[in-house]
Amino acid sequence: MTVEYDGTDFCGFQWQPNLRTVAGVLEITLARLFSHPVKLTAAGRTDGGVHATGQVVSLATSATFPFERLLPALQALLPADCSVRRAEVVPEGFSARFSAVERTYCYAISNRREPSPLLSRYAAHESQPLDLAAMRAAAEHLVGEHDFRSFSALGDGAPTTIRRVGQLRIAARGELVGLQITAGGFLHHMVRTIAGTLIECGVGRRRPAEMPGILAALDRRAAGATAPPQGLYLAGVRYADGYDSYADPPALRGFAEAALDGPCAFP
Amino acid sequence: MTVEYDGTDFCGFQWQPNLRTVAGVLEITLARLFSHPVKLTAAGRTDGGVHATGQVVSLATSATFPFERLLPALQALLPADCSVRRAEVVPEGFSARFSAVERTYCYAISNRREPSPLLSRYAAHESQPLDLAAMRAAAEHLVGEHDFRSFSALGDGAPTTIRRVGQLRIAARGELVGLQITAGGFLHHMVRTIAGTLIECGVGRRRPAEMPGILAALDRRAAGATAPPQGLYLAGVRYADGYDSYADPPALRGFAEAALDGPCAFP
Repeated sequence: MTVEYDGTDFCGFQWQPNLRTVAGVLEITLARLFSHPVKLTAAGRTDGGVHATGQVVSLATSATFPFERLLPALQALLPADCSVRRAEVVPEGFSARFSAVERTYCYAISNRREPSPLLSRYAAHESQPLDLAAMRAAAEHLVGEHDFRSFSALGDGAPTTIRRVGQLRIAARGELVGLQITAGGFLHHMVRTIAGTLIECGVGRRRPAEMPGILAALDRRAAGATAPPQGLYLAGVRYADGYDSYADPPALRGFAEAALDGPCAFP
Repeated sequence: MTVEYDGTDFCGFQWQPNLRTVAGVLEITLARLFSHPVKLTAAGRTDGGVHATGQVVSLATSATFPFERLLPALQALLPADCSVRRAEVVPEGFSARFSAVERTYCYAISNRREPSPLLSRYAAHESQPLDLAAMRAAAEHLVGEHDFRSFSALGDGAPTTIRRVGQLRIAARGELVGLQITAGGFLHHMVRTIAGTLIECGVGRRRPAEMPGILAALDRRAAGATAPPQGLYLAGVRYADGYDSYADPPALRGFAEAALDGPCAFP
């Protein structure tokens, strides 16, 4: 299933006892329809406040619930800040997490003196003018295969901190700046730490030439601040079988996309 | 002062006892800075849930508060859903309401099967496909000077219900449909009733040719439903002295603008 949510009022994706999480809301709703407990597997476990326009989840069910009534039923039962926009039957062994070959995240920054009331839930705010050329020069050092330990949360626990960033785009429309980053997988807080470090390059607190040294340090303290969650969107997930939730877009992928040039700015 | 707000958590613009309103929040904050009570005059009294990206307010003050510190002080004191992005000293006798010569509103519609979590606060939702050509044909009948009594709230109380609509644009980007309407002034609920009636034309429940009859009826019951408040944005106000808050735009004017073609889609 392809899922969109406004992360503001969720304590992240992953199920947690006594907290409102995306997985909790979906699992409870699906369990009602299927009359058995449901455990979701997700392509990306987003943190609290992080949004998704192309999250993908998978689940196993033995229910006889009519498939063609699944989306209308979910629409009727899910809260306004979570929506399932696609569902399909997949081969046994498919996992939304392990079958994914590429994930795309976007990050939105409102770049003007005063914070924007209409963007406060959906973008980070940076009051100093961002130098996009400096941000792009810094971003170039991150494209390709690198050890991203300096850009991951302390104690991430991943068996390896090597990741391959396929693309890192930065664009602006007026005062809205958007980052788009694609990789096979990401470490915990990796996109937000990259965004925070690029913002520091954009306001001149760091030079783009520092990036190789930050990567080489293999130390979280070498990189910049973790940018806030409300700017981040899980925009899409691509699978080996050809399905790509990024290429199957909602009306608006979030404000980060709005800042990106080209035909995908608005699908 | 030019003001932006997310109308979701406000009970409209106008001051009301014991309710959180935009005027209430601004007046209390300004009174703290000026050490005297403040009464605002606004270009448009938006309803609860309606947003503004270019609201203009005026006030009289005898305070000696340093002008250059006004915007930073307001930024520090106002809540995240209300922001003042411009302030200027105006000649005595200026009124944000009565000196205005033109107002522009936008209306955003998320047009796809399932509601969008990221647009639920910022756009109306219409699940049936909208025929933009039919909506534009219907809209043409509304441009120019007409008696808009059929499109105003019952008991509006305005001395005349004649208004001149200068422009009514309709555009789409993907599944996001935007209306933009400009007039010297609007009746209460006029934009939302026009939007609701045009949506009914868009889904085929009404024909564009019915519009002249709806105008001629001079009866609210002849027009369509009042579209919901969350799709509406007060986008700008133009003054005789040349200032136009629509031409002095924020990062993003709201989702309705995002759907409109041309260079003003993103400032």
